[in-house]
Amino acid sequence: MTQFNFDLIKNIKSPADIKKMTVGELCRVAKEMRDAILYRTSLISGHVGSNLGDTETVIALHYVFDAPTDKLVFDVSHQAFVHKMITGRVDGFINPDSFANVGEYTIPTESPEYDLFYAGHTSPSISLCSGIARARDIMREKYNVVAIIGDGSLSGGEALEGLNVAASLKSNFIVVVIDNDMAIAPNTGGLYEGLKELRDTNGTATDNIFKAFGFDYLYVAEGNNLNAVIEAFRQVKDTDHPVVVHVNTQKGEGYAPAERDREYWHYSAPFDIPTGNPVHISEAPDYSDILLDFIMDKGTNDPRSLIISSATPGAFGLDAEKRSRLGKHYLSVDIAEQTGVAAMAGAARAGAKVIYPVMATFLQRAYDQLMEDWAMDPSPALMVTGGTGICGIPDQTHLGFWDIPYITSIPDIVYLAPANAEELKAMLEWGYEQREHKVAVRMPELSYEHADYAVDTDYSDLNRFKITRKGSRVALIGAGDFYIQAVKVAGKLAQSGIDTTVINPRFVSGVDKAMIESLKAEHELVVTLEDGSVEGGFGQRVAAAVGPTGMKSLSLGIPKHFYDRYDAKELMTQLGLDPEQIASVILTTLNAESTDAGLRNMHTR
Amino acid sequence: MTQFNFDLIKNIKSPADIKKMTVGELCRVAKEMRDAILYRTSLISGHVGSNLGDTETVIALHYVFDAPTDKLVFDVSHQAFVHKMITGRVDGFINPDSFANVGEYTIPTESPEYDLFYAGHTSPSISLCSGIARARDIMREKYNVVAIIGDGSLSGGEALEGLNVAASLKSNFIVVVIDNDMAIAPNTGGLYEGLKELRDTNGTATDNIFKAFGFDYLYVAEGNNLNAVIEAFRQVKDTDHPVVVHVNTQKGEGYAPAERDREYWHYSAPFDIPTGNPVHISEAPDYSDILLDFIMDKGTNDPRSLIISSATPGAFGLDAEKRSRLGKHYLSVDIAEQTGVAAMAGAARAGAKVIYPVMATFLQRAYDQLMEDWAMDPSPALMVTGGTGICGIPDQTHLGFWDIPYITSIPDIVYLAPANAEELKAMLEWGYEQREHKVAVRMPELSYEHADYAVDTDYSDLNRFKITRKGSRVALIGAGDFYIQAVKVAGKLAQSGIDTTVINPRFVSGVDKAMIESLKAEHELVVTLEDGSVEGGFGQRVAAAVGPTGMKSLSLGIPKHFYDRYDAKELMTQLGLDPEQIASVILTTLNAESTDAGLRNMHTR
Repeated sequence: MTQFNFDLIKNIKSPADIKKMTVGELCRVAKEMRDAILYRTSLISGHVGSNLGDTETVIALHYVFDAPTDKLVFDVSHQAFVHKMITGRVDGFINPDSFANVGEYTIPTESPEYDLFYAGHTSPSISLCSGIARARDIMREKYNVVAIIGDGSLSGGEALEGLNVAASLKSNFIVVVIDNDMAIAPNTGGLYEGLKELRDTNGTATDNIFKAFGFDYLYVAEGNNLNAVIEAFRQVKDTDHPVVVHVNTQKGEGYAPAERDREYWHYSAPFDIPTGNPVHISEAPDYSDILLDFIMDKGTNDPRSLIISSATPGAFGLDAEKRSRLGKHYLSVDIAEQTGVAAMAGAARAGAKVIYPVMATFLQRAYDQLMEDWAMDPSPALMVTGGTGICGIPDQTHLGFWDIPYITSIPDIVYLAPANAEELKAMLEWGYEQREHKVAVRMPELSYEHADYAVDTDYSDLNRFKITRKGSRVALIGAGDFYIQAVKVAGKLAQSGIDTTVINPRFVSGVDKAMIESLKAEHELVVTLEDGSVEGGFGQRVAAAVGPTGMKSLSLGIPKHFYDRYDAKELMTQLGLDPEQIASVILTTLNAESTDAGLRNMHTR
Repeated sequence: MTQFNFDLIKNIKSPADIKKMTVGELCRVAKEMRDAILYRTSLISGHVGSNLGDTETVIALHYVFDAPTDKLVFDVSHQAFVHKMITGRVDGFINPDSFANVGEYTIPTESPEYDLFYAGHTSPSISLCSGIARARDIMREKYNVVAIIGDGSLSGGEALEGLNVAASLKSNFIVVVIDNDMAIAPNTGGLYEGLKELRDTNGTATDNIFKAFGFDYLYVAEGNNLNAVIEAFRQVKDTDHPVVVHVNTQKGEGYAPAERDREYWHYSAPFDIPTGNPVHISEAPDYSDILLDFIMDKGTNDPRSLIISSATPGAFGLDAEKRSRLGKHYLSVDIAEQTGVAAMAGAARAGAKVIYPVMATFLQRAYDQLMEDWAMDPSPALMVTGGTGICGIPDQTHLGFWDIPYITSIPDIVYLAPANAEELKAMLEWGYEQREHKVAVRMPELSYEHADYAVDTDYSDLNRFKITRKGSRVALIGAGDFYIQAVKVAGKLAQSGIDTTVINPRFVSGVDKAMIESLKAEHELVVTLEDGSVEGGFGQRVAAAVGPTGMKSLSLGIPKHFYDRYDAKELMTQLGLDPEQIASVILTTLNAESTDAGLRNMHTR
């Protein structure tokens, strides 16, 4: 492996250790920290570009300001690697045995005094700090409140709301805008042309968006020059009013591959440092290939098609080449899911056929828009949710467990959960071509499966569940990528002599009450399996429908909790979601029946 | 009653009818329409100020642009009364028999060609229009896309996101900013100082926020002067790029009481036109008085207290006098719930004791912040949700039916539902003083009740339900303001000789599994009653817990649907939620039991 020298940083225990260094030493610290970032991410993956870009800025922050007295809030906090190394967690970057002890984001439980918030999603820092600043003022305390935000996060509504509020506080408030001219993908919106003008005019351009919101403004042209950032922060420290420090940096600074392709290097799986090549390349078939082919087919062949992306095109394989092939049929709304959903509704209302692929965890930012701008309006369109379920992103800030509860709490959104490749294709096709419903399709993630039954092509008869295997006593309803779990559980139960009914609900936004009612004749127990939070999810809807029938029910899925940095396989077992575990719970529930229930069993034969 | 002359407007069937008028006639139309607005709202209530303020602007829009070919999107659409009168719905304003046929917002089912969206919440117009504009361009159509937005709505993240995206479309896009220098309450944020500077400099001030987002800009000083607005719209019609028309208007224009108190007259209950006095004044005790007293007590006596409002202080009785008494302990974030929640989390993290009273329907805009900024961070605070349940706002755009599903889908938020005045006081006090949990309290709305049991003062033992009456066979769990329904149902069932157990769950964010399990011995049926959407709600959680026990369950509440302009009492009956209706469903469910269940009943005695 590459040999690195961490002599200087390995002894850093707290900000005090860098405060006594010379700027020359700090430059060596920056070099070692960049190496540490590459060392860690090359072995366990992580956010590369932003952390290489803000190295000097964050060192300067801790050099000039006095954390934890001064409050530093990072947004989005995956750019806080250097902050972590300065605040006693350098081992998590230079010692592989300690990598797992340090998370990707700022984590209050990891460092209660230096990590104030998780801030795993973009855009909250300024709003969070507005609360800190007002709390400081009413309690008559004195310290600096500093929000550190990337240019990409500025397009998010919460950041812009925050600028409006923070400026009104008329008190010490520092916003450090780390401008690397990139979100995950390149920014496209109007405000970014303004930022470019500011960069091109050394901060002197008129119609300065930060001044327009009421901030004082300071520009730092050389954001990767320690002297420059230190000088700037010294100027604004202890300010008595809101000020923006606009720092011009380079995403991926100091690592050639990351400087060459800044979008690719936002986040990287394990890679070979000298070449930048990925260590593993998966050749396995993937549901995401099906979605990508579908998007490119519609987007390049249907003159009415419109593909909307809220700044995560890469998550769906839409690289720069494919986006340029889509041309005007591709609309980037930057990091702005509220606008993503509203634009989908607007374009649909105007006659376009819209596909909006979006990560379920980020779509949370548009809950109100799903209801008020889309569901209740005559705007038929197709939304596709990614990163859902237990095989989504295993970090508590990005869990894909909540989409079924929040999406299905909204009337008039048809939420489909395909169980295999054939069903995914059919549902995407139907959702796109139909002009009546607001349709969302949940990308399966668990395992790549093929249909063992005839897949329907028309889903306009809403909430019709499908029996794929007829049995008795126990009915297993496996939603989406947990349908295969139901099939496996049925296999286990067969060994105990129980001939189980297996059902693929296809719809998770409603219940086939007629089918539930009909199960009564031959079944004692209805079991639901879903790859998401049980509370407010699909299974509890079924349980409520089973409630009056006299059958028992079991709603199996993920208990409501913030699971953090878990291993998918281990969590499945821990939650009792392996087929054999599920089978044994079912047997227990059946056997728990009191004699009278035994009578009912005879009764129903 | 006041006599009005509607000679000119009574014959308006479509925009064509005003296009042939002289400006002199249009001025008379404006006068008659203002009278019509007062006539309707004085009799059935409604939004007064904004519609009186934008009268000339909207007349000019229809005079210059060609709807429905040109797309006019109103934001928030309660300011579209004049638009409705011009587009064939004048009867809904001058003929009391027709008032009910015309809703408060733009409604696609009411006018499919002129009302494109509901847009009942603030801030979506620009984002919706960005989708329309791109759809138009890919389909090679030609028409004007016009978003009409008030200054108050600009502080909402979705509006600011929309400006960023719209500017990037580089195509025909017109944003009409109707600036009356007011949201519901006065604006406080930094961007509003910029708007004031623009008004004070006749639109020439530098650091123009609209230009900063990339828009061309046109200022109209006399927004209530028809010639001026008509001229401005003629200048921008068919523009080939994004332009903002900033129209300076007066909220409440032309009605002295509304000009005197523009906050009070944002929305008015029925009133006497000559004096502006309300027709009905309720002296009945009200839960909101309890909350207001609590807020003012903490806010004026506790040096660590912070009251946050997202621009609806009036909804909680926080008028200008009370806000000034709170001083720095009151923080307005304008219309920005995302920032409201984040500021709550930030201030709590910094040691303040925060109370955030917020309307449940608007809190939807902060779903992601509830999860990512508050629930997972160490930020104990008290949030209070208003306008919930069947007695909330009876318009489909503002329903209070979804709060239990969306709030309780999030881990680590303790959602309390008080059933009476004493419990409300106790829960507010506990939620405020405790420093461990993220607590939300759901304001009861149904009826003003007093506790018929000893109310607890400590709720730190989470998810403990309370049995207030011990019976058998049937257990009734009535959540929040539906607890009283459970008591009434128990009374009905007593008449059928069923001695019912009655339970007040207090917590709607979790289930007392131990108690559910213990009910098994003596009960056959567990019934939940909640004043909100059943799907994803409280009752379905209970149903899932009951599922494996062998008891039956009934989850009663509001089926998932967009109910519009309903009468609360009628809807209760229509949904079968009156006590006698509930009692009969329970009896049916009990009797539906087959003989074996009959055996079980003996068995459990």
